[in-house]
Order: sequence, then structure tokens, then C-alpha cells
Amino acid sequence: MSKTDFERIFHPRRVAVAGVSAEGFGFGRGIFLSLLAMNFDGELLPVNPRGGEICGRKIYPSVGEIPGAIDFAVIAVGAAQVPETLERCRRKGAAGAEIISSGFRELGTPEGAAREDAVLAVARRGIRVIGPNCFGIYCPKSGLTMLPGPDLSRESGPVAFISQSGGMAIDFAFMGPWLGVRFSKMVSFGNGVDLRETELLDYFRTDPETEIISLYVEGVADGGDFLRALKAAAAEKPVIVYKGGLSEAGQRAVTSHTASLGGSRIIWEAALRQAGAIQVHSLEELAQACLAFSLLPRRPYRGITVAGGGGALGVAACDMAEAYGLSLPRLEGEIYAGVLACLPQPGSSAANPIDIANPYVPPKMIKEALLQAARDPRVDIQIQAPLLYHFKALSTMMGAASFPEITPYEELAAAARETADASGKPVVVVLPNPRRRADDLDVEEVLRQARQAFLSRGIPVFDGLTEAMRAIRHVAAYAGH
Amino acid sequence: MSKTDFERIFHPRRVAVAGVSAEGFGFGRGIFLSLLAMNFDGELLPVNPRGGEICGRKIYPSVGEIPGAIDFAVIAVGAAQVPETLERCRRKGAAGAEIISSGFRELGTPEGAAREDAVLAVARRGIRVIGPNCFGIYCPKSGLTMLPGPDLSRESGPVAFISQSGGMAIDFAFMGPWLGVRFSKMVSFGNGVDLRETELLDYFRTDPETEIISLYVEGVADGGDFLRALKAAAAEKPVIVYKGGLSEAGQRAVTSHTASLGGSRIIWEAALRQAGAIQVHSLEELAQACLAFSLLPRRPYRGITVAGGGGALGVAACDMAEAYGLSLPRLEGEIYAGVLACLPQPGSSAANPIDIANPYVPPKMIKEALLQAARDPRVDIQIQAPLLYHFKALSTMMGAASFPEITPYEELAAAARETADASGKPVVVVLPNPRRRADDLDVEEVLRQARQAFLSRGIPVFDGLTEAMRAIRHVAAYAGH
Repeated sequence: MSKTDFERIFHPRRVAVAGVSAEGFGFGRGIFLSLLAMNFDGELLPVNPRGGEICGRKIYPSVGEIPGAIDFAVIAVGAAQVPETLERCRRKGAAGAEIISSGFRELGTPEGAAREDAVLAVARRGIRVIGPNCFGIYCPKSGLTMLPGPDLSRESGPVAFISQSGGMAIDFAFMGPWLGVRFSKMVSFGNGVDLRETELLDYFRTDPETEIISLYVEGVADGGDFLRALKAAAAEKPVIVYKGGLSEAGQRAVTSHTASLGGSRIIWEAALRQAGAIQVHSLEELAQACLAFSLLPRRPYRGITVAGGGGALGVAACDMAEAYGLSLPRLEGEIYAGVLACLPQPGSSAANPIDIANPYVPPKMIKEALLQAARDPRVDIQIQAPLLYHFKALSTMMGAASFPEITPYEELAAAARETADASGKPVVVVLPNPRRRADDLDVEEVLRQARQAFLSRGIPVFDGLTEAMRAIRHVAAYAGH
Repeated sequence: MSKTDFERIFHPRRVAVAGVSAEGFGFGRGIFLSLLAMNFDGELLPVNPRGGEICGRKIYPSVGEIPGAIDFAVIAVGAAQVPETLERCRRKGAAGAEIISSGFRELGTPEGAAREDAVLAVARRGIRVIGPNCFGIYCPKSGLTMLPGPDLSRESGPVAFISQSGGMAIDFAFMGPWLGVRFSKMVSFGNGVDLRETELLDYFRTDPETEIISLYVEGVADGGDFLRALKAAAAEKPVIVYKGGLSEAGQRAVTSHTASLGGSRIIWEAALRQAGAIQVHSLEELAQACLAFSLLPRRPYRGITVAGGGGALGVAACDMAEAYGLSLPRLEGEIYAGVLACLPQPGSSAANPIDIANPYVPPKMIKEALLQAARDPRVDIQIQAPLLYHFKALSTMMGAASFPEITPYEELAAAARETADASGKPVVVVLPNPRRRADDLDVEEVLRQARQAFLSRGIPVFDGLTEAMRAIRHVAAYAGH
């Protein structure tokens, strides 16, 4: 078999979509409509033995009847028809195919296993297979989208995601744009009969569009080879790994989900550490780590400041910092006095945590306080937690003024950027939202705008302190490795 | 001193508000306007030496010049004027006063400490003091509100919250209504010169309106007496305790926040356990525990099922369950077959976790599947995670239909209630939201409506599986105590 043509897989010019019904809600029809809605760059060729039309396009009765060659195929036919359909795609010259259909080894039946073996037999004849039982590939640049993604971002970025789980992949694809994570490519490989974790790691290690590799695995096909690939990739780029199914019951769930073999918690944790990978324990943690690696310089952060309205937030910050191997150096002397001079009195505290005491302190003063704090050589990075939701109560009490209008998130974001640039020490922002009543949708709206204001200036934003510290810790551990 | 008249403190008929300026953004003016906006039940009497008017009400030049007696006072004058103002309130017959002003022992200066001692001296002459350096009292029934709460809920419920931190209190007050937690009373006591954790525990232990007591403390005035009160309260009602500042740096932050003495982590953890209290480690965890205690029967839950679209969710569920002392019994035989018969094939799994495979499975079928699973005697409680955000992609692909219209959350909520009633085993719902882009505000809106649909039927809702399991675990541990 010749070298895998990943270019034709991620940026195909001609794509057959097998299993597209003219009506209804099937997965084949769904992915076809999603590809259209995403303005996929290439030509889409729907296939279904029943024929018909979809969105003005002729549905071919079989892949074989498509005129000319194809580069890639999306296969969403019934499991029994999959091997034959795949063979037809191979004969049409496809470099690869994703099989969305389920009904294979994950069933735990001999029939399922036999069907999967038949798929593998075709793959070995010269077509790379993603799946079966997967959500497919998402490539923002070409517009190739996964199930069920008619409205994913077309903006590319540094993060690759390799996922055994389709649900995990689509959730991360949804999260990326608001979280501030942009993707180079995403591959949900499901049962992974052919192309899976190890080869994809090797590919993304050398992919110039990928700077950060993230991975959700439930089990691996070849432990030794996987560790070889992981070590090689981690030597060049951060590799963030979420291993699902580390518990006993989790391993059982893994078997019925993607037909993988798990492995014990201790072995996995040691192996990941030795390979230099970053282990996370949820999709949220994985996504937040990707954000931190996207925006923070890779340094061994240890000393942090935490500045926010509310003393309890500071107390919580200290408790958490300890858990994440970070420390809050106590500001003293001239630096302490400098910070204190920027804050309203009484009620504030400058010792670090810096209690700003009042959510309405002007951004300029916060910037000054953080610049003062950054003079302490023990401070490596600063966390700022503006409690923007309090502006709603302020606007209610002020009467006329509208809440979004009086919330200075643009000024805060500009100040955070200037603080980071002038001090050379990154600023990270935490934007909590305890106001989530049906009539508080405006708070959510303002916070989303605020998040984008910070992100557009390269300032990472997290929902809470725990998330921020955990993500900083991952970057610090990687840099200090 | 006579027995504290908590009735006159929480439901005062006449309230002086000292430190209300006719204009500007001061805290005194803020709390006065908030009390008006909340439609506080009693009479509000604004006070400021500069006089003037506010919202058509005369501002009295001093508390002494208010005609007749008062029941309660809100004091927001400068720290130096506080002792004298408090003395005037006492002479006016007030049962209590909350001092919002800061500038006392938390400053760490002799002046601050002296001022606080002066406040205590007045209190000892016969007026109960909440504060100083606090956000005050929130009582939904009377409409007494804390800072900065012009728009808190007026609906009462079973949960009391005693908080050393004002920021924590107002955040929880905001969270209550959407989270599904209703409050009897909330007291933010700040520096706690007089009335604080121990006496408030004793009060809420016997308060007939309070069924669940929650508490945020940074330090206690008298460890032995606190433990006595905690033990007595915990013997009658669940008492949920968040102790802030358990780390070394956290203890330092505590000192500048509320001038309290902390105590070591090991001592605290042992003491809380011995007293029969439930220890939590964040406000979110505290709030979620309050929700679980509000809505779940108090039983020693161990066996759970987890049903949702997405195999990875099930894998994660198993990994988490282990961490929270819960287990997912593997469904077998007739029960397994019964569950499987309710689910779409292929792609689903009935072994528990129950992988529903497709987010669009009708509520009726999910109900049938859960009723089948509930027949297993090892199953104590069921978690259901409908991935409602996927309906947005469905509506995008379907074209015309609007996303909120096609999302069957009312049917799901009714089905969950019926499932719980018919099986006698509670159903808990998880509603994650990975779609938070600016143009996905409709997803947030639908999820908020869905949350209320479940809550209105007594079904607790959490954002994620971790939160749900952690909360269930707290109830189980309490019941199994």
C-alpha cells in the first residue's frame, strides 16, 4: 500500500456520500445536508440505490455509477452493505472513507465482528478507513464536517483532536469557537478498524498546521507502538491525552462503546507520564488545556496573583493554588503599597490575593494594580476575575442605563492586554456567572461578548478559578518537563 | 440581655437605613434602592446628616430624629461613625442592625480593631449586630435584601445559608432560583463581631422554615461551642459546610478578608465528620448539595444507572461513579433485554451505562427504558442526560422548524417525573451545554426552560455528571450515616 494521502482525505475535491435518502432524518442525509450547510469546498456526490434528488442534485444509484474518480467517501449505509460500498469507493480511487454506520464489533456479536473484518479486508487492499461507528472527520479549512455538524466553524487553528468518541468530538467542535480553541483537523475514529490513534499521532506530529495535539482514547490497538508514537509526538508538540475508562466499570463501558481493550489506571498513568504527554480527566479539562497552550507562553509558572472583587474568591484561590502546585506570594513593602494605592479604601486588600472589594473599580486602576504586582519577581502570571454580572444590579439601581452599555468589558480586555505586554507576564481572566435565571439571559450575552473581547486580544478566559489554575498548571508542567 | 428577637430582625416592620445619600453610587443608597426594588414589606426610613430626599421619601438627618421606634437598621455610614449610629439604633429600640460598612478588624490596624471593639460594646448593651464588613441579611419572605440585590427572589424555601462572606452569599442568592434552591433566610455576617456562625446555627436548628442548613465559614469564634452547635444542628437537619482557607495561603487570605482565625485542614475535616456535617469544597458544590437535599429522598444511594446519548458519556460516568462511591450495576438477562427493546438499533447499548445512541429518541421510549432498568433491585437512582443542544443541528438540517419548538423538554420532564413515581426510584437529570457561541444564545434559552420544566416537577438538574454524582453522594452519605 502506498503512503497514505492525507491531503486527499482532509481536502478531497470529490466526495461520495453513500446512504443519502431523498427524505427523512437518516445519518447519511444528515451528513450530506451538513456538508452543504458548511459550504464544503469540493464536489458532493450523493448515493442511494433508490435514487431521486436532494437539493437539486441527482442521487447516484451506486458509487460505481459516479462518473470519474473520487477522493474520499462518507459511508452511512446499513452495516451489511458497508464492505461492498467501501470496495466500490476503493475502485473509484478514493484515498480514504469514513464509515459512520454502526453495527460492527461494538455489538459484541459474531456477525458484528465478521462485518468489521470484511471492512478491514477491503482497507488492506488500498483504501484508508476512518470508523466504523464514528462521526467522521472535521476539517475547518476544507469544510469537511462531522456528524451532526451543519454549523461548525470554518476558521482553522493550531489544535488537532483525535477522538475515539464521536460525541466527544462534536462537543469539542461546538466548544472550540466560544472557548477560544481553533482546530487544524479533528478525527473521530470510533471502532478504528484501520486508521486510528497511533498513525494519526504520527501524522499530526509532522502536520505543519498542527501545533497542539489532543486525544481521547478508550483503548489502543498496539500499546507499544502507541507509546512510541506518543513519545515522538510529545517531543515536538504538547500532546494532551484523556484516557476514558480507567475504572473497572469504565472498562466495561468502553467495550460496548468502541470495542476497545482498556488497561489499568496505574499502567496508563505511568505510561503517559513517561511519554511526556499531559493527562487530563474530562473533555472540559482537555479543551481548557488546549486553550492555555494556544495562548500562553510555555513557561514553568509557579507564582500567581489573583485579583478580583470578593475576599472569598481570594480565599478559594489560595486553597486551589495549593492543590495545583501554584503559589500566591505575599506582596510586601513597596510593591504592596503600590498595589494598595490603586484600590478603593476601605474594603480592599493588596497582600495577594488582591481583593478589589468593589466590582465597579475602573479598568485603568486594575491595570495599574496588576502592573505594580507584576514587579514582584516571584509573580509569573496573573489571574483577574472581574465580576461583570454585578453590573446588572448596578444598572437596575441606576434606573435608566442599560446593563450591557455600562459593562466595561472592552476596556477591561484592552487593559489586560496592555498589562500583559507591559509586564511581560501573562494575564488570565476568569468570568464566573452565578446569574442564570431565564430573565438573566442578558448577563449570559454580555459575558459571551466579554469573553470574545478578551480572546480577540489573546487573553485566555475560563469560567472559574479551578479551571484557570488547572490549565495554567498543565502549561507549567509541560514547560518545566 | 433578653432573648434575641429574630422575628423582628428577619421580618422588621420599621427599618432605618443609615448612610443613604440623595445621589451617587454609595452602598447605603444602593441597599436602600434595592430594598425598594424588592418591595420590602415594612417601612423604610433613610438617614443621612446631609438630609434631602430619595424616591420621594424624606431623608432623616439622624436615626434619633426618626419618629417612633424601629425594629432593625441597615448601617452603611463611614466606619468612624458606626459605633455612634449603632447606639442611636439601640436607643430607638432596634432588635438588631446589620453593618455593611468596612474599615474594622479586617484592616489589620489598631484603629480598625478599636472601632470593632466599640461596636461590640454597643451590641452588649442590647442590640444584636450582623457584621461589620458584610452584605447583610436576605429574607425572601419579608423582602429584606442584601447588597447588591435589587432583584433577588421573593419565593421562600427550605434552605438557610450562613456566610462569613458577602460575595459568596450574593452569588448563592443569584444561583438559587435557576438552580432550584429556595431560601428561608440568608445571613452574611462578615467580621461577625456579635451574631455569627454558632448562634445562627442554633437559631436555624429550631427555625421551622428551615429544613437544610448551609454554611460558609473561614474561621470560628469559639471552636468548642461551634462544634456543639454543629452537632446539635446536624442531628436534626442536614448541615452542609464549606470551610474556606484550609490551605496555608488560604488562612492568610482569611485574615485579611474577615479577620478570622483559621485552623488546620486535618482538624477541620475530622471535626466536621465527627459532628455529622457534610463537607463541601466550593460554593457550587454547596449549592448543588442543597438542591439534592431539597429534592431527593434521603436514602443511602449506591447503584445508579446512567442513560444518555453518547458512549463516551457512559464511560466518563463509570470513571466518576467509582470516585464518588457509586456503582453502575451491569444490567443482565430479562432486564437487559427489556431495556434494549426500547432503544434504537444498532448503536445503542443497554448494559448500563445505557447508551441511547441518538439524541432524538422519543421521551416515551426513554421512560420505558428507565422503568425496565429500575426493576433491577441493585438500582437505587437513575441519571438521565438528554443532549438537548443537538436539536439545534437537527433544526438547521430540517430547514424550517424552529429549534425551541422541536425540543421536547416538557415531554422529557413529564416522563422523568412519571418514571420516578412509577418506579419509586428518583430520576436526576444532567443538561450539559457545549454550545455557547454568541449566536447560540437560543441553546442557552432552551436549556434554561428545560431546567425549569424538570425542576417544576421536582426533578433535580445539574450541568454535568460530576456535579450530579457528587450531590447524590452527599445525600447518600448523610442517609447512611
